[in-house]
Amino acid sequence: MAGMNDVRINGDRLWDSLMEMAKIGATEKGGVCRLALTDVDKAARDLFVQWCQEAGCAITIDKMGNIFGRREGTDPSLPPVMMGSHIDSQPTGGRFDGIYGVLAGLEVIRTLNDAKLQTKAPIEVSAWTNEEGSRFAPAMVSSGVFAGVFDLAYGLSRADLSGVTMGQELKRIGYAGEAEVGKPVRAFFEAHIEQGPILEAEGKTIGVVTDAQGQRWYECTYTGQEAHAGPTPMRTRRDAMVGAAKVIQAVNAIGHKYAPLACATVGLVQVHPNSRNVIPGQVFFTIDLRHPDDGILSEMDAEIRAVTARVAEEDGLEMAFEQIWYSRPVPFDPTCVAAVRAAAERNGYSHRDIVSGAGHDACYIARVAPTAMVFVPCEDGISHNEIENAKPEDIAAGCQVLFEAVLTRAN
Amino acid sequence: MAGMNDVRINGDRLWDSLMEMAKIGATEKGGVCRLALTDVDKAARDLFVQWCQEAGCAITIDKMGNIFGRREGTDPSLPPVMMGSHIDSQPTGGRFDGIYGVLAGLEVIRTLNDAKLQTKAPIEVSAWTNEEGSRFAPAMVSSGVFAGVFDLAYGLSRADLSGVTMGQELKRIGYAGEAEVGKPVRAFFEAHIEQGPILEAEGKTIGVVTDAQGQRWYECTYTGQEAHAGPTPMRTRRDAMVGAAKVIQAVNAIGHKYAPLACATVGLVQVHPNSRNVIPGQVFFTIDLRHPDDGILSEMDAEIRAVTARVAEEDGLEMAFEQIWYSRPVPFDPTCVAAVRAAAERNGYSHRDIVSGAGHDACYIARVAPTAMVFVPCEDGISHNEIENAKPEDIAAGCQVLFEAVLTRAN
Repeated sequence: MAGMNDVRINGDRLWDSLMEMAKIGATEKGGVCRLALTDVDKAARDLFVQWCQEAGCAITIDKMGNIFGRREGTDPSLPPVMMGSHIDSQPTGGRFDGIYGVLAGLEVIRTLNDAKLQTKAPIEVSAWTNEEGSRFAPAMVSSGVFAGVFDLAYGLSRADLSGVTMGQELKRIGYAGEAEVGKPVRAFFEAHIEQGPILEAEGKTIGVVTDAQGQRWYECTYTGQEAHAGPTPMRTRRDAMVGAAKVIQAVNAIGHKYAPLACATVGLVQVHPNSRNVIPGQVFFTIDLRHPDDGILSEMDAEIRAVTARVAEEDGLEMAFEQIWYSRPVPFDPTCVAAVRAAAERNGYSHRDIVSGAGHDACYIARVAPTAMVFVPCEDGISHNEIENAKPEDIAAGCQVLFEAVLTRAN
Repeated sequence: MAGMNDVRINGDRLWDSLMEMAKIGATEKGGVCRLALTDVDKAARDLFVQWCQEAGCAITIDKMGNIFGRREGTDPSLPPVMMGSHIDSQPTGGRFDGIYGVLAGLEVIRTLNDAKLQTKAPIEVSAWTNEEGSRFAPAMVSSGVFAGVFDLAYGLSRADLSGVTMGQELKRIGYAGEAEVGKPVRAFFEAHIEQGPILEAEGKTIGVVTDAQGQRWYECTYTGQEAHAGPTPMRTRRDAMVGAAKVIQAVNAIGHKYAPLACATVGLVQVHPNSRNVIPGQVFFTIDLRHPDDGILSEMDAEIRAVTARVAEEDGLEMAFEQIWYSRPVPFDPTCVAAVRAAAERNGYSHRDIVSGAGHDACYIARVAPTAMVFVPCEDGISHNEIENAKPEDIAAGCQVLFEAVLTRAN
């Protein structure tokens, strides 16, 4: 630990790497579209692997396509201290969500190299496959397999809406690795933008993440009767979109009922046949419920099950309803959290404890290793949007905290 | 008119032609997908043109791709008596909507040929381009250009959701004809399935269509703020889908308020970015309002304008709202209507007067020529659906009525 305070990560280098990476999948509005296991995701993976190798790391890829870049420790028999996040993005995503945690980890290793520091435990930077869950549901599936939440066959069989599986796409882009999924980890740290408005509103630089809220994801399909929008009297209709609209409003009402901590969202709606003058015969939509208190999340679950069934009954619709994912609330490891808080204090960064509203790979890794997260503010709290933005000085501060927290646990 | 009662159309031949045509664009569920000006539409047009030529017709194609098959009269200087409808279908359409009116017209000509009957006025069978309006809005655009409702440039510039125009597609499939759009018509008759439940429920074979209801079509785009569905508190959200859901329910309520004659439908909804864990930032949706009374249709118009504006205001959404089409209620020509009714009575078919809930090419042609329609029942009143069905004996009866009404006006 001697001299740790004297070593500074290189904020400019980290920023330049983020901007260079953001060119891969760049969108006109300044964001990125880097859906999991597409050609664009492959290009970004290739660049990350190249940068890791240039930093002297040994690369391992596991059967879920998770990438690990390893800097050896003085005691190679120890499990690694790991840092990481994800490379994939939302369809209209930003330049920081996920990739910041990956490149901040790389910057930690570059800084160790520059300072010629040795660590007792090995240090690894990881990139987890398909964190977003927007191409393949559920989210965080590959860190989930790593943590034993899902088995490997389940992970590889996840299919996108056109029926292509993760296993097929991993082979196609050359990232179906040989390594078994899962291994001992001494500690795991994930740096991430907050994706919410709290740190910015309070003028805080560092969020010390103590917990992550629980999530339940559902898929619902209403089937009514498609028919001509002209000669079909209102009283004989079974309009699946009218039913879905009622549920969309009910989901929103449930979110408001359990405010301020609850979130409830219908983000995806597919209407069939989706023609101006045809009564919608079928609507598929998703529901995303979140709360940090598992008891309240269960109440929200009961309410959404009741309302979807009631609307189906009232509107004469057939319903297929399934909870496709449940991620329980996660308390992070007190020692790792304390290491993050101490690093923020040592540097004089303003900070506050915070609960993560989003799911992160760290939520699953927390099941198999002591884990914590470092949040930095993002502009207007906006994420999952091409205009997502963050300040270079906050990005650098979060990485400095990551660096020091990692060293605390590696020695 | 001598001997007219003795000449019978060939119901088996008509049915066989319908079934042969239904192979083009056939879907697994027994319907057709023959979107306007696709390769499938071209294949169906080619077959229709071939059948017309085999029946001795001269073919004319106009600049909107409308097809006319002409059987000459003893007085070629007279404007033709015309029969027709459309070849295109909904994305999940049936085997009768539109194509029945086209092939019934062809059967009338085949019957005249078999009976070696001559008519004083020429007889033409017409197929109007893009009646459905599901690929290119608005519906009935090419009969509209024919009737002077739209100008040619407007018609050719209609674009599908990917931006391809009707003009481009007409050239691509070889149906951008030379003829000017529009010419004198002595009388126009369109046979069609009812697309509603009334004839079947009352056990009537023939619907004598006296009027068609008015229609207003709208496009609405709500723009809010796309953001992460996890850490974005409910109170700061501007969720475009929640706003759209309120309007979808309001549209449905307006339809019920003016029941039994009103229809109100949101058939098409596009959500952006349409990802499970992203708050929808933008939603585009369509509204279709119908009523046979223009005054009530105007009241419905005022209500929908008020509710869309109010929801935008309340939910903090930007709104783009446009009425993209208005088709006023249409009274059909009393003499032509009487010819249809007389033909039904002469044959002993049960019949009733009926108002068309759907728009039809006949609604526009009625502006420039004496026009009427013949309805036949369809199973469960269902149309714009792959399971759309009709009985061979009803299909034949409607064609017999068409034949006799046409002869009444052609001599």
